[in-house]
Amino acid sequence: MIYITRRERFNAAHRLFKKAYSDEKNLEVFGKCSNPNWHGHNYELFVTVKGDVDPETGFLVNLKALSRLIREKVIDKIDHKNINLEVDFMQGKMASTENLAIGIWNELENDIAQLGASLHCIKIYESENNFVEYFG
Amino acid sequence: MIYITRRERFNAAHRLFKKAYSDEKNLEVFGKCSNPNWHGHNYELFVTVKGDVDPETGFLVNLKALSRLIREKVIDKIDHKNINLEVDFMQGKMASTENLAIGIWNELENDIAQLGASLHCIKIYESENNFVEYFG
Amino acid sequence: MIYITRRERFNAAHRLFKKAYSDEKNLEVFGKCSNPNWHGHNYELFVTVKGDVDPETGFLVNLKALSRLIREKVIDKIDHKNINLEVDFMQGKMASTENLAIGIWNELENDIAQLGASLHCIKIYESENNFVEYFG
Amino acid sequence: MIYITRRERFNAAHRLFKKAYSDEKNLEVFGKCSNPNWHGHNYELFVTVKGDVDPETGFLVNLKALSRLIREKVIDKIDHKNINLEVDFMQGKMASTENLAIGIWNELENDIAQLGASLHCIKIYESENNFVEYFG
Amino acid sequence: MIYITRRERFNAAHRLFKKAYSDEKNLEVFGKCSNPNWHGHNYELFVTVKGDVDPETGFLVNLKALSRLIREKVIDKIDHKNINLEVDFMQGKMASTENLAIGIWNELENDIAQLGASLHCIKIYESENNFVEYFG
Amino acid sequence: MIYITRRERFNAAHRLFKKAYSDEKNLEVFGKCSNPNWHGHNYELFVTVKGDVDPETGFLVNLKALSRLIREKVIDKIDHKNINLEVDFMQGKMASTENLAIGIWNELENDIAQLGASLHCIKIYESENNFVEYFG
Repeated sequence: MIYITRRERFNAAHRLFKKAYSDEKNLEVFGKCSNPNWHGHNYELFVTVKGDVDPETGFLVNLKALSRLIREKVIDKIDHKNINLEVDFMQGKMASTENLAIGIWNELENDIAQLGASLHCIKIYESENNFVEYFG
Repeated sequence: MIYITRRERFNAAHRLFKKAYSDEKNLEVFGKCSNPNWHGHNYELFVTVKGDVDPETGFLVNLKALSRLIREKVIDKIDHKNINLEVDFMQGKMASTENLAIGIWNELENDIAQLGASLHCIKIYESENNFVEYFG
Repeated sequence: MIYITRRERFNAAHRLFKKAYSDEKNLEVFGKCSNPNWHGHNYELFVTVKGDVDPETGFLVNLKALSRLIREKVIDKIDHKNINLEVDFMQGKMASTENLAIGIWNELENDIAQLGASLHCIKIYESENNFVEYFG
Repeated sequence: MIYITRRERFNAAHRLFKKAYSDEKNLEVFGKCSNPNWHGHNYELFVTVKGDVDPETGFLVNLKALSRLIREKVIDKIDHKNINLEVDFMQGKMASTENLAIGIWNELENDIAQLGASLHCIKIYESENNFVEYFG
Repeated sequence: MIYITRRERFNAAHRLFKKAYSDEKNLEVFGKCSNPNWHGHNYELFVTVKGDVDPETGFLVNLKALSRLIREKVIDKIDHKNINLEVDFMQGKMASTENLAIGIWNELENDIAQLGASLHCIKIYESENNFVEYFG
Repeated sequence: MIYITRRERFNAAHRLFKKAYSDEKNLEVFGKCSNPNWHGHNYELFVTVKGDVDPETGFLVNLKALSRLIREKVIDKIDHKNINLEVDFMQGKMASTENLAIGIWNELENDIAQLGASLHCIKIYESENNFVEYFG
């Protein structure tokens, strides 16, 4: 069993808030992350997959195919986008990094199985001081 | 003459577009940075000041005072904000990194002189692959 | 189950030595880390907690509260301090990174439970080439 | 149980290819990594060992001894070398990062046991976007 | 006058040696960088251009066009290549980082002028501990 | 004219204070950096030299010789030391990063001339948020 990780990056706007709350209540609960005019981040995404090394190629998985898959299923949908308004797999959810990690896991899990590996971890940096990890 | 640099960070949403253009025209000129629903970044700001070392303290400038000044004049206005809609010193300008560097220079130049140093450079990273420098 | 990590930093002086040894013997066993006049580091601390996402907020834990807790229980006690002489939770122990990780775990474990999460890992970088991880 | 990680670096040339294939076939399967004239990388190697803290020293393991061991068994053999042609523990294998991690594990496992710790993980960055982990 | 920098990366093999020398003499003069079987690096390239901000766009230069130019004139020629054997603008020169910086300057200078900016600096990291800057 | 930079690192303890002041007065002027029990840092030192490329070697300067010089004149004197008490070129001066940069410049300037290059800049990071540059 070996693990390989691919890093991708995306830039997006988001806001943490509940529609049922007033702006004041959102500010109280979510702080400056609730700004109604949005703010944004350079997110760093680390996708770790696991499996056996193919003795023919020396690879666990074709990294170009893995990168292409992450771009199609995640980056193209979220990069330079508004997470709350425009990202299909985040609709109806709080745009927190925790939910982003779970949402990206669900986007990728089945397709990675088709590459001959298993998804092991989704790790997302929202800033240099905070990151989330989800193992399914 | 010695140079000292203080790094600060801010997260903000922005959009590159001209009001006179249609969304299609903005997309043609500014690419995905023109997304009408905004996107955002973790910006890194480096403020470099220059001057002589005070023989009493061994300092060019009190770094805490410099950091406080940058926070008051820049970070508090722009962090977790929408650069196009909410940042006073960016009103009426394209929200490009180039204009951001010039705008932050103008915000800080006089106050840094009052700390007993001269502003030398504003450097801003918009992403790990792009940064702008402005020397006045 | 999801994991979130908060990074904090502190600068401190320390020395590796045994009182029962002479300076020569300490030098032999601990090398230049035994310098009787101290040396120091910029330590990076990563605190990882785990638990379930609160469906109301989308958070595992309030990151500001976590950061405040780490500051109160760890950073305020150790930043710009001498680890051997001034840090209560390191008294009577070798000031190694290993013991620092265990000491910080013990400082934080109960209070993190009160935030509604479980402490998962304390990771400390002493330099860019060395880090320690402790999982309790 | 505590974990300590030592980072070392090496620069090397390599090529991904099968002798049984033509250059065209290798290009098709391995892309530009199959360049017959070689290419190369700055590899970053992270060796993680685990065990108990020695109450005498506060150490899991003497980091200088660990670093010396990694240099003797790995870095001296691979730094500024051609992985395909010159590295004994990679002969007869694809020069992939996956195989490199497994090869380095095998080089180090027994000797680390003699330092009084257990090898836990070999992690290798081939570029800032890709890394492999092997846990034995 | 404002300055903008674009980072690109490439991986390549190279060797420092003089054909007129024996392998022993090359080893004496160039150390392990003279390995006849090559070694390699992950190079980081920073291209800084300068000029005036276009009031229409807020840009000094279209960064996508700059990135495309660097890829066409430099990255496509050198990435996953052997610098000594395959890179046209390095033929007949020592494959040192110094000469690489000068060679890349000459590749880019005229074309950057056609983008409406002036080339200011070529900076190349060969490793995390060494970099070269060339200002023409 | 070309510029090459070598990075070296050192860990040291220091304190900012004036002997003529009481501990209270020092705390007022220098903040927590005045702690009488010392604190410390992982310093990063960047030494930039300039000159012409030697057409024989393709080098501005032999980087190994430059590194050896920095180690002999600076790192061996300051690494794992107390800057206030043990570093000869800092005696009688405030142990600020500004003075450290000037002190290291004076240590290196003449010897770098003997390597066939000119010292251009001493840059020192005291933390990830602060660095000083001195150009003589």
